[in-house]
Amino acid sequence: MTRPTMPNAYPPGDLAAPPVDEELVDALVAAGISVDVTARARADHGRDWWPLLLRDVHEGRVPFWPAVVARPATTDDVVATLRVARERGVAVTAQGGRSGVVGGAAAPDGSIALDMTGMDRVVAVDEVAGTVRVEAGVFGPDLEAAVRERGFTVGHFPQSFDLSTVGGWLACRGAGQYSNRYGKVEDIVRGLRVVLASGEVVDLGGRGPRQAVGPDLVGLMVGSEGALGVITEATLVLRRVPQSEARAAYGFGSFAEGLDACRRVLQRDARPAVLRLYDQVESRRSFAQDTCLLIVLDEGDEAFVAATLGVVAAECGGADRLDDALVATWLAHRNDVGALAPLWEGGVVVDTLEVAAPWSALEPMRVTVVAALEALPDTIVASVHQSHAYVDGACLYFTFAGRPAGDPTPYYRAAWDAATREVLAAGGALSHHHGVGRNRARFLDAALGGGADVLRTLKEALDPDHLLNPGVLGLGGEAW
Amino acid sequence: MTRPTMPNAYPPGDLAAPPVDEELVDALVAAGISVDVTARARADHGRDWWPLLLRDVHEGRVPFWPAVVARPATTDDVVATLRVARERGVAVTAQGGRSGVVGGAAAPDGSIALDMTGMDRVVAVDEVAGTVRVEAGVFGPDLEAAVRERGFTVGHFPQSFDLSTVGGWLACRGAGQYSNRYGKVEDIVRGLRVVLASGEVVDLGGRGPRQAVGPDLVGLMVGSEGALGVITEATLVLRRVPQSEARAAYGFGSFAEGLDACRRVLQRDARPAVLRLYDQVESRRSFAQDTCLLIVLDEGDEAFVAATLGVVAAECGGADRLDDALVATWLAHRNDVGALAPLWEGGVVVDTLEVAAPWSALEPMRVTVVAALEALPDTIVASVHQSHAYVDGACLYFTFAGRPAGDPTPYYRAAWDAATREVLAAGGALSHHHGVGRNRARFLDAALGGGADVLRTLKEALDPDHLLNPGVLGLGGEAW
Repeated sequence: MTRPTMPNAYPPGDLAAPPVDEELVDALVAAGISVDVTARARADHGRDWWPLLLRDVHEGRVPFWPAVVARPATTDDVVATLRVARERGVAVTAQGGRSGVVGGAAAPDGSIALDMTGMDRVVAVDEVAGTVRVEAGVFGPDLEAAVRERGFTVGHFPQSFDLSTVGGWLACRGAGQYSNRYGKVEDIVRGLRVVLASGEVVDLGGRGPRQAVGPDLVGLMVGSEGALGVITEATLVLRRVPQSEARAAYGFGSFAEGLDACRRVLQRDARPAVLRLYDQVESRRSFAQDTCLLIVLDEGDEAFVAATLGVVAAECGGADRLDDALVATWLAHRNDVGALAPLWEGGVVVDTLEVAAPWSALEPMRVTVVAALEALPDTIVASVHQSHAYVDGACLYFTFAGRPAGDPTPYYRAAWDAATREVLAAGGALSHHHGVGRNRARFLDAALGGGADVLRTLKEALDPDHLLNPGVLGLGGEAW
Repeated sequence: MTRPTMPNAYPPGDLAAPPVDEELVDALVAAGISVDVTARARADHGRDWWPLLLRDVHEGRVPFWPAVVARPATTDDVVATLRVARERGVAVTAQGGRSGVVGGAAAPDGSIALDMTGMDRVVAVDEVAGTVRVEAGVFGPDLEAAVRERGFTVGHFPQSFDLSTVGGWLACRGAGQYSNRYGKVEDIVRGLRVVLASGEVVDLGGRGPRQAVGPDLVGLMVGSEGALGVITEATLVLRRVPQSEARAAYGFGSFAEGLDACRRVLQRDARPAVLRLYDQVESRRSFAQDTCLLIVLDEGDEAFVAATLGVVAAECGGADRLDDALVATWLAHRNDVGALAPLWEGGVVVDTLEVAAPWSALEPMRVTVVAALEALPDTIVASVHQSHAYVDGACLYFTFAGRPAGDPTPYYRAAWDAATREVLAAGGALSHHHGVGRNRARFLDAALGGGADVLRTLKEALDPDHLLNPGVLGLGGEAW
């Protein structure tokens, strides 16, 4: 299947690539691995959708030069690639659609870029249990089409749906836009096949919905961003294609009032698939609304959808009921992922940060984060929406834009520093679904405390030679 | 608070304890730890509710003699105890109510039995987020009472509710009887404080409902059965005390028909808090019913309870509607945990095994497991019920009883071997909520495959001296 390209592309013409490591390439070829050593392939695999790189790419600067792009067709090919990597001390970065936005999917200088998108088979569907076994490199639309024709949905619809793979979702602990109902990918996965740095192939989980057989080894690999193992297959739970859908839209006088309504909805155990609350800046910009817009969409069995919308209506009693067509507006634009590139190319620095926190921390956090971003002299605008909600908290999704003179990096870094400091001070988590990658690695100790020590211990135990995606999660190499 | 005692007790009179390790005791006392070296305390902490031990205890044989019972009052006390343990190379077994049924909570010979039940404070309740911070040694009723008075429930009601602690629930990945609605304990926990074997105190998770900040470090400790760290505090999510409840009971002509109805209910996204299906043996024995009884109970917001019972009624259209009073019968007897002891004391070997599997595997697994148990010459009866259900599978809870001549161990072991072989062959998980402990350690490689290698790697990394609960999960020592 043809895939959309990156939101920007290197300019036409030659890219001045470092020399090819012929011995490495020969070793991979001898191991039966399909490889690509063209300058353009290497450059393409040396970046992902980390916004900081967008202007670099537009201006022909290649952020990282992996030594070679390797294209495994099977788990055995991954094993063979890792054997070559171990023997030669070369790093390996597993990649799917490279739509990651924090630098974690960009293969670093001199590494093997392990392009998993050739492993894209839907292996098996269990129609009774409602599960699918799939290779890691399958893209969202192909997986969804394969299960839809049997009456199922995975229910995982990230903004990057068209451009991202199952392996990428899992490696980054991704969330779809309907995750209130279907769960984040860690709720959807049931089992994994993983190749460890040692070359051992291990099957984790996969024997039913729940186990009490030691620690959660699936959860050890989900979110490991390619630094603890290479995910080659996964078993995911399916849901029936929904029979019913309902929509609603409300306007709140303040973000705090809207947040509190969302909290009450969730704490009455309603789980509308979509429950998104926009601040005034975003309500105006994206929906031409003057109040804080709440978008509601639920789908599923009719009785539950009706009960859910009933709870929402009851808890939004103090808000204005707006036109349901606003939900259609959101649906029409929800996967517009290419909007940032022209801004960066035009000199505007723009990015988003998505962070989860308990309900009690959200409104104070919103205020301090937005204020910290606005306090930076180069900031044009800072805004926020609530994107994913749970019984005990939610995800706030901040957007900032600035127009610094010259090199964008200092402003970009300062904005992340300022916002993240306030997130952590308020008790929020460093990321809700984009992951850590390279961009956030410097905050890991502040965010995890002693947990960062545990993470480093795991890294040393599972990948003592730091072969796997060094730099991401602050593990095994420099982040940036 | 007074706690119920073990279902049986050592006979009165002196127990012939091995000599006290005075140097170890002195070192603990010097570190400020409260200790108990009486023979009865040591004997009590050398066993849990593993049925194999019941007759031993009744006849005055002490399964394990820990060197000393240490009673920490704070996390610092746990740190100090582990320091003494490291310095002297003595094992440490963290214990709560010791209601575990697979031997994992029995402190082995010569170890420090770390009795956590003195750490029983409810530290803080966040009424907006709906979370509670609690020490690991608090018992179920005390925790539930503390949050009920603020309008909340934890919703975790294991059969051992009166006798088990938060730390025990977490260490064993426990499930309550209402877990279809409230989740297993891994769904309820949000954060942990853990003392590692190194003595480092780490706070894991705890920054909101979800993170994408590397692997799930909370899930690394949940289910680790005291072998990777000592849990001293936890943050749990709360739910509002339910406003509405509804009950129903149905009778099915076969277990397979009942299971299929359960599957359809769950796959329409209904989540009745209780949905328990009994085979004919258990329906007769416990409820005097001739068909396969399905017990249904839901609670929560009225609209969702009504929708849930509506889905159940629709999917049970082919079954007999029975008297709702059968639900009350179940409620009245659901925590009868002392029934096994008199049987064992009378020479009957009886135990249960609870295993999760995908819906597609459950009925074949039921047939082969029951047949394998019945095929053993000493078996009197084998039966099963479905106890916890999910969209993609459920937990089958088998009971077997036999009357071997002489030593009960060979029959007991043969029954577990035979049943477990069929569970694993059918694609089921080794345990759903009782854990592995000592009893199931021998099956770990067969159940986890390469995952067992990963688990051993984690053990070596986090507890290289095998101080923490050696033997459980097949880690760091002999199981039995």
